[in-house]
Amino acid sequence: MFDNFYTYKISQYENGIFYLFFACECVFFLVRFRRNSIKMVEKVIIIGSWPAGHTAAIYAARALLKPLMFEWFLANGVAAGGQLTTTTEVENFPGFPTWVQWPELMMKMREQSLHSWTRIETKTVDAIDLSSRPYKVTVADNVYETESIIIATWAVAKRLHLPWEETYWQKWISACAVCDGGLPVFRNKHLVVIGGGDSACEEANYLTKFASKVTMLVRKDKLRASKVMQQRVFDNEKIDILWNTEWKEILWNEKLMTWITVVNNQTNEEHHLEAGGLFYAIGHKPATAFLNGQIATDEVWYILTVPWSTKVLAPGSEEIIPGVYAAGDVQDKIYRQAITSAGTGCMAALDAEHYLQTLA
Amino acid sequence: MFDNFYTYKISQYENGIFYLFFACECVFFLVRFRRNSIKMVEKVIIIGSWPAGHTAAIYAARALLKPLMFEWFLANGVAAGGQLTTTTEVENFPGFPTWVQWPELMMKMREQSLHSWTRIETKTVDAIDLSSRPYKVTVADNVYETESIIIATWAVAKRLHLPWEETYWQKWISACAVCDGGLPVFRNKHLVVIGGGDSACEEANYLTKFASKVTMLVRKDKLRASKVMQQRVFDNEKIDILWNTEWKEILWNEKLMTWITVVNNQTNEEHHLEAGGLFYAIGHKPATAFLNGQIATDEVWYILTVPWSTKVLAPGSEEIIPGVYAAGDVQDKIYRQAITSAGTGCMAALDAEHYLQTLA
Repeated sequence: MFDNFYTYKISQYENGIFYLFFACECVFFLVRFRRNSIKMVEKVIIIGSWPAGHTAAIYAARALLKPLMFEWFLANGVAAGGQLTTTTEVENFPGFPTWVQWPELMMKMREQSLHSWTRIETKTVDAIDLSSRPYKVTVADNVYETESIIIATWAVAKRLHLPWEETYWQKWISACAVCDGGLPVFRNKHLVVIGGGDSACEEANYLTKFASKVTMLVRKDKLRASKVMQQRVFDNEKIDILWNTEWKEILWNEKLMTWITVVNNQTNEEHHLEAGGLFYAIGHKPATAFLNGQIATDEVWYILTVPWSTKVLAPGSEEIIPGVYAAGDVQDKIYRQAITSAGTGCMAALDAEHYLQTLA
Repeated sequence: MFDNFYTYKISQYENGIFYLFFACECVFFLVRFRRNSIKMVEKVIIIGSWPAGHTAAIYAARALLKPLMFEWFLANGVAAGGQLTTTTEVENFPGFPTWVQWPELMMKMREQSLHSWTRIETKTVDAIDLSSRPYKVTVADNVYETESIIIATWAVAKRLHLPWEETYWQKWISACAVCDGGLPVFRNKHLVVIGGGDSACEEANYLTKFASKVTMLVRKDKLRASKVMQQRVFDNEKIDILWNTEWKEILWNEKLMTWITVVNNQTNEEHHLEAGGLFYAIGHKPATAFLNGQIATDEVWYILTVPWSTKVLAPGSEEIIPGVYAAGDVQDKIYRQAITSAGTGCMAALDAEHYLQTLA
């Protein structure tokens, strides 16, 4: 009887524990399921960093959209934190009376994004899928679902990948006359511009404000630029053009660039050219390959946006893709400045916020 | 003979002095004439300051355009340095990880303009004349000639000019939910939005992210907003609407706004309403009166710009006015943020620089 009594009590007790465990398990499952289902669909994913991405993050975070940012990593030829390791002085970002180092400015923006509770992951987005909503963003083996996407990958200046280029990049070699042309290191120097298109002509003209002389190296025997731009270059007494000419090597003296070697691609003749700085104007490559043609771009792969907004279009149509926005250099081949980029980042976040209000 | 001798010497001496003076006078006249004639036609005049004006100045100055800036003065209802005296914290201007005081940010930008050799005059432009080139800019009794103009006057939030408004402006009264809604002072408070248009509805919706409750005071018995925006407001449980209602007075307690008095404009009944903050959404007034209809604007006087640029149009035509650009809030009724404004300031300076290259 005792046995039976105890067996009864124990089994009753065990049953109690079982039910308790079962109930707990159910509650946990529901909580986890609910949390997962909330967590799985992000409100906004920001692809890319730099001024556009971080400004978008700051605005989106302040609108409580809990943005998730994938700051690029070894993509488009830019090393991890590549943008943070070049040490150019920025004199034209408003708010910094004298100047700020580029890495310092970028770190400040990153810190500001984190401070407003942006989640930043140092990963590269492999692909996005806009075929159904919520949209999907693939990062290595993970697929993230999101209601909106802000594309703030940038456009990288094309390079020639010649000897010494890496060493001198952003020191005596620049891809932006407006950004760097006025820096003391280039003042009253003989500067060399590489390229024959509109932007090469524009950069050459711009640089004559600061340089003692500007020489353009043009690979062919004519300029690709528009007639007007060509005329402006021909009329400018401070500009010389070397036709059929490419640069080959930098010669430097006591840490200053002084001469470069150029070569005529018809005769293979080489000669030295005095040069205090090199400006690349051979175009930019916007980081849009991962879009896989799901968003309308122009002929050189810049994302097309709707005027006075950051909305994007479906390829070959006038139709806006809801919830997808582009900001920064990836959609701007005219101005390409840190401050204009930041401005469009803010616009993208507000556009996204506005769109998400319609879903709520 | 001595007399004669001395008379001769003196008269010779006097003649010498006369010729010397005459020669000096001629040289001075020529120098002054030349200096005046160079000085008389400016390359670029910037009208207005704030983020757009100063960013334009920084870029124009760095392009050696020697910009002349007329930072407003007691115009459009804003006191001298009005923008510098309100002490709002700015958390969303990229580059400042935690926050920056608005006056501090503006002083930094002004300092940066001066540092890049912008000439700043604290005067208000009375009129511009675009009928012939060079354009004319009238400031009090002076007329300045210029090859290009950047208009960066802003848009001021309309006010009701009620008792206490001035005291509480930018403390517990704001005209920008996106800028100020997330500030700690407004968190978990009952907030009041004044207005019945699209932006009032948007601001109310936005504020529900932070507020415990939002009440809209609508002067009429219906909303002016679009159907979609109306529906979003009606669907939002956190928003109450008081129809035919206007606010009359702020009641405050130990330096905190706690209640306001509202009045029904049909019955004249007054009652108290708990309120931790007031948001005006009764529109903005862009400072475009001095343009005297020489530039195309929309129906509420915002300057119209050409997409992806800051170029402006002649009224009632598709024709671009060469050398005239608009930046900042005076041409943006959608985003109205400091950073977007700065972005367009940069664009305007680069547009102007580009145009001036064509003249050279």
